[in-house]
This record gives sequence, C-alpha cells and structure tokens, in this order.
Amino acid sequence: MDNIKKDERIEDLSIKGLKIIQNPNYFCFGMDAVLLSWFASREEKKNLKMLDLGTGTGIIPILLYAKSENCRIDGMEIQPDLVDMANRSVELNQLEDKIRIIQGDIRNLTDEVLPNTYDVVVSNPPYMRGNSGLKNEHQSRTISRHEVSCTLEDVIRSAKRLLKDHGRLYLVHRPERLNDIFFLLRQYKMEVKLLQMVHSKADKEANLVLVEGRKSGKPGLMVKPPLIIYNEDGGYTEAVNRIYGL
Amino acid sequence: MDNIKKDERIEDLSIKGLKIIQNPNYFCFGMDAVLLSWFASREEKKNLKMLDLGTGTGIIPILLYAKSENCRIDGMEIQPDLVDMANRSVELNQLEDKIRIIQGDIRNLTDEVLPNTYDVVVSNPPYMRGNSGLKNEHQSRTISRHEVSCTLEDVIRSAKRLLKDHGRLYLVHRPERLNDIFFLLRQYKMEVKLLQMVHSKADKEANLVLVEGRKSGKPGLMVKPPLIIYNEDGGYTEAVNRIYGL
Repeated sequence: MDNIKKDERIEDLSIKGLKIIQNPNYFCFGMDAVLLSWFASREEKKNLKMLDLGTGTGIIPILLYAKSENCRIDGMEIQPDLVDMANRSVELNQLEDKIRIIQGDIRNLTDEVLPNTYDVVVSNPPYMRGNSGLKNEHQSRTISRHEVSCTLEDVIRSAKRLLKDHGRLYLVHRPERLNDIFFLLRQYKMEVKLLQMVHSKADKEANLVLVEGRKSGKPGLMVKPPLIIYNEDGGYTEAVNRIYGL
Repeated sequence: MDNIKKDERIEDLSIKGLKIIQNPNYFCFGMDAVLLSWFASREEKKNLKMLDLGTGTGIIPILLYAKSENCRIDGMEIQPDLVDMANRSVELNQLEDKIRIIQGDIRNLTDEVLPNTYDVVVSNPPYMRGNSGLKNEHQSRTISRHEVSCTLEDVIRSAKRLLKDHGRLYLVHRPERLNDIFFLLRQYKMEVKLLQMVHSKADKEANLVLVEGRKSGKPGLMVKPPLIIYNEDGGYTEAVNRIYGL
C-alpha cells in the first residue's frame, strides 16, 4: 500500500472494519487507550465535539468514532512523525470528514482549537513524572511516556480551557498519580464525577485508573465496580472480552 | 451489672474477650468502624500513640487495642453521654491504663492532646455534609452522622496538627467525598498513600472507601485490591470473615 512506510504495520481494530497504522519504533497503543475509549463512551455520545490531547498515532479518535454517533473528533499531537501516521490512518479509514489531526503543543494552544467549544476532552497522558523512571532511549517514546513535553497539569489546564461549561474530561492514568489528579482538577474548578479502578487480577493492586472529571461540576462522585483484566486461569475476564468485542 | 443503664446492651466483640456498651438511642457502631480498625492495623502497630477523633462509644480504640501491641490509645468525643458510655466500656474491659477517653471538641483542642505527638490518628467522621440528607431526629445521632459539630476539614486540620511528622491518618468515608478528601489532605500537606474501595458486591459501585494519609508524605499512592463484602450467594466473603475473625 502507498501510505505505509518502512517498519510500519496496519492493525485491524476489530470494530466497524477500522484499522490503524502502528510502528514499533514509536509508542504503540495499548490496553489503556482501548479502556479509555470504552470508559469515555459509557454514556451515549451523539452530536458532540470531542478532542484527544496527545493523540499519538490517533488510536483514540478512531475508537471514539467507532463508539459514538455523528461526533466531530479532533486529535492534537506535538510530534510531526506521529501526526503524519495518524493522518494516514484517518485517510486509510476514509474518516477525513469526522476526524481532524492537529499538530500542536497543548501548552500553546492556537486558533485551531477554540476555548469553551468541546463537549468532551480525553487524554492518555505520559504516566511518568518528567524526572522519574528510566527515559526511553528513543526520543519519541520518551515524549509519549514521560512528562517532558506535557505534564498532567498541562493536560488539565488545557482541558479546562477548551471544554464547554459542564463538559467532561476523561483520563486514564496510573493510580499513584491520583493525589495529583484530584488536587489539580479541583484547583482548575473541575470535579471527579466517576472513577474506576483497573486491576490485573481481583486480588492485586490497581494498575490503572479511569477518571471522569466535569468542568464546573458539583462535588460528589461514584466509584464504579472494579474492572478486572484476567481471570484466575489467566484468560481475559468477560468484562474485558466485552470491551474488545470478543 | 452496675455500669449498664436503661436501654443499654453489652456486645461481645469476639476478639480477646473484649466487650462494648451500645445503646440503640445513640449511634451504634457498624461495619465501617470494624473495617477502619482493620485497615489501620494492616501494618504492625507497636509502641505507638494513637488517637481516634470522634470516638463515639469507643469502639475504635477498643478494636485498635485488640490489634496492636503496647500502644497508648486516646479517643476524643464531643458528646458527654457517649463519653460516659465509652468510659464505662473501657472500665468493663479493664483497659484504663491503655485507653483514655477525652471529652472535647476537635475544633478547639486543649492541652489534653498535644500537637505533633501522635503516630496514628484515625477517624470515622460524620458522612453527610452539614446541610445535606435527612437530619436524624435524635440530636445525638445527628451529630454522629452529619457535619454539624465537625466537618471533614475539621478532622483533617486537627489530624495534621496532632500527628508527628510522617504520622498516619486513617479514615473511612463515603466514596462521594473523595474529591474533598484528596484536596483537603494535600492542602494540609498530607498525601494519600493507600486507598481501598469497599463494594457490597463485586459488580456494584463502592459503598465505602478506606484512606491512609501521611503527614508530609511524598506523592504516590497504592490502590489495594477491592474489598468485597458479600458473595453472590449473599454470605460474607472470605475476606470479611477474616476481618471479623470468623
């Protein structure tokens, strides 16, 4: 195929015939992106304007498209190579009129994304603090994993600015960052409304947390039943199979 | 028995022969007090100074005594009738040299509890915001359930003041207050270090949350496996049986 470059591969997303271009030299999407798209689509999403901050190869806009109806979805990414891959995945799925990939820095928003215009903002931000953990030797994967180009506060500040009043922010993150997530959201006048812990097994500590915040939301939140990934026999649980459409 | 008044009953706590006086006209202890005592005793507690803020009938100091070794435990309560009941339960168990019940208002601390002297502070505070929910027609139960005499912020402010540096605060609360808990703890320079959700059943929303905060703690927290109360057949789970020593 014309639009595939060296080392790239096309993955079938097993939903509505959608596909995505991945490249092992870059950060490839994982279960967290799938869980976030599922979590953000819990309630019906229809005729909404959505934005994915730090969209990478564009996996989340494509999955959100699959799970929503008549929504307009933007994805913003700072790295030109990933913007190029994401754009080619959008073309591959002929979704140019539904999904727009924007090259940009969420710390310096331009007129391409206007304040107070989005119903939904989602983000699967870098998990590691800028100065913690081993930096990935490949610069691009480092940007995707570490807070070098964007911190959690950058994401929350931008979301606050871009969301309409009462608009929703969906995040997937590591549980150890919950102190920061709760504190920053309230500092930026948003409230956590829904929380779901993700545990690899029922008797293990949580590995991921899914968070729904609401701009100008009233206090009060619900903690959903835990999402368990693996059964005792090592296979996916029914809940995960349903999420993957298996 | 001499020290039992009208309407009171003595309950056996099924641990180390301990007993407690309860009175259905007042707020009686429930599973939340049992879970909090268990959660606060996860790690070995030996030779420590502990304090229970809003101790009610004294259930938590008595359970903490049962699960710890050579600790000195104080319980503070604003309501004189409950202080009297708690004191009589302490006498009933001959624990006068281990447990001290103090009548006092946690908003106006006196010399009976000195700043920066406690290793552990625990609290099962009123769950309802001052002006929300139905007020209990019995004034005492209202104080135990609603934030009329003490808000979450009062508890956290006092804990911050009374704890030694790096001392731990253990709370049981309703999940819907997590926004407040996280925000206030960080505001008072404490960090949530451990979190455990309590679900009545594995597929239900969380009913309670157990929180460990640490004064001057570094950011970063662990979310323990969910604690599920009932099996599908309606009986207690093994985990709960273990907590109750069944």
